[in-house]
Amino acid sequence: MVLARNGQIKIGVVAPSNRINPAVQEGILKLVAGIDPQSRPDIWFHPQCFASSGHFAGTDALRAQAFLDVANDDSFDVLWFGRGGYGSFRLIEAVLAGLRPAAGNKIYLGYSDAGAMLGALYGAGIGRLAHGPMPADLNRSGGAAAVRRALAFLVDGNAAALEPSVAPGTPTAAFNLTILSHLIGTPYLPDLSGHVLMLEEVAEAMYRIDRALGQVASTPALRQVAGIRLGRCGDIPANDPEFGRSEDEVVRYWCERSGIPYLGPADIGHDIDNKVVPFGTWRP
Amino acid sequence: MVLARNGQIKIGVVAPSNRINPAVQEGILKLVAGIDPQSRPDIWFHPQCFASSGHFAGTDALRAQAFLDVANDDSFDVLWFGRGGYGSFRLIEAVLAGLRPAAGNKIYLGYSDAGAMLGALYGAGIGRLAHGPMPADLNRSGGAAAVRRALAFLVDGNAAALEPSVAPGTPTAAFNLTILSHLIGTPYLPDLSGHVLMLEEVAEAMYRIDRALGQVASTPALRQVAGIRLGRCGDIPANDPEFGRSEDEVVRYWCERSGIPYLGPADIGHDIDNKVVPFGTWRP
Repeated sequence: MVLARNGQIKIGVVAPSNRINPAVQEGILKLVAGIDPQSRPDIWFHPQCFASSGHFAGTDALRAQAFLDVANDDSFDVLWFGRGGYGSFRLIEAVLAGLRPAAGNKIYLGYSDAGAMLGALYGAGIGRLAHGPMPADLNRSGGAAAVRRALAFLVDGNAAALEPSVAPGTPTAAFNLTILSHLIGTPYLPDLSGHVLMLEEVAEAMYRIDRALGQVASTPALRQVAGIRLGRCGDIPANDPEFGRSEDEVVRYWCERSGIPYLGPADIGHDIDNKVVPFGTWRP
Repeated sequence: MVLARNGQIKIGVVAPSNRINPAVQEGILKLVAGIDPQSRPDIWFHPQCFASSGHFAGTDALRAQAFLDVANDDSFDVLWFGRGGYGSFRLIEAVLAGLRPAAGNKIYLGYSDAGAMLGALYGAGIGRLAHGPMPADLNRSGGAAAVRRALAFLVDGNAAALEPSVAPGTPTAAFNLTILSHLIGTPYLPDLSGHVLMLEEVAEAMYRIDRALGQVASTPALRQVAGIRLGRCGDIPANDPEFGRSEDEVVRYWCERSGIPYLGPADIGHDIDNKVVPFGTWRP
């Protein structure tokens, strides 16, 4: 997925969901300044990242426009989602309607709430998309490793950044489980037939993980995936009463009921070890 | 929806989701004993209600069998969901496969997690279905009023028990918002074209209410409803940052975006004032 362009790659950061703390920008620019000049990207944070409108990093109109500012600008090689939270689903309609050809020749990288937009872009056949670390991961203890991994993928197409089961010729996709469950039924759920579908979750009780996996496994279009790999389910709140089954047992249960092959764990999650998963077939 | 049968009606209580505290059975039987003999129902709690398997009131097999025991028994006029929680979605496949003709001549009453099963039964054209209070509502302060309302509906077809906008000739349906969102895409989402769709929510943050309403409003099949009424959204946890919009603003936003008429509030919710909403057209 390395870019063909010669010279420094240019990354534009936008925040379609929640606002970014300005300290993240400072930290990212400092980290980048320490990278060998030959592989040092030029990273620009759209001012919208720091806007605020209630829950969101600015109004829907502002966030959609910022997304289009970067996506439609040929000088950018990458649109990097700054942070998750909630809000990208609200922008899909305006973004899809506003994209221009420049948007197609670009990498889009993010995860968590960004998955709603990544899924919609993948369904629309726009750009090269990947599930992986974002600038706000710098807030995690040891988060610089996640950010460096994302940059190694974006700048050098470094295969070491990829989720280990990703292989040329096997289409993949990755989502936060809850985000995928809320795309189902809408026009923005992409066709994942034949894909290895990797799912991860954070901060959802086990009964909710079970409920969302039940929906995924019961949706006819998603039964056409090549198989499911389960990433890490982190910070699971207590279930009252104790759920009595682990996330591994739950994913195996629904895969067995639905006839979807369960392929084992995936090295993704809301953590610093989160690896990159391209949407579609990865070309080294 | 009053039953044609002469004499005492017989209600079977099952628990497809979480287990019921035996004190609920005691309380319900005591309440029923105080009802005028002419309209006093015979209520039987299936022993499965008190079983336990981790999160659930018994294993999937036990819960499905209990549901079928009552649904397929011609001596019961009503299957009353004892309590919500989570678990009825897991049983849909087994229940639909096991239902016999006796299941069609029966009222099914419940809400919250029961909505998954009610939706599937409605889609399959089985029985007379309604969204309304359950035995476990007795645990709420003042909950006897909710239970009496459910019984007045079941025994006498009392129109005062109905949600006030319910009218003969206008098909209605009611769901917990999150439960409906997890039915989308599965074979168990019923056709709600032309229905007034009433939604309520409990204990979900505003961003989650917005996210689920976005999915509902973006699902082409659900855009065919006659309109949406929003019930009460209770016990909303704090949103960080403050969401900045009320549930009323959020439902109006999504209705306006999607072209679904917003018809105003609905008198339903996870509380003692929860009124009864029949699925389909109510016949007084």
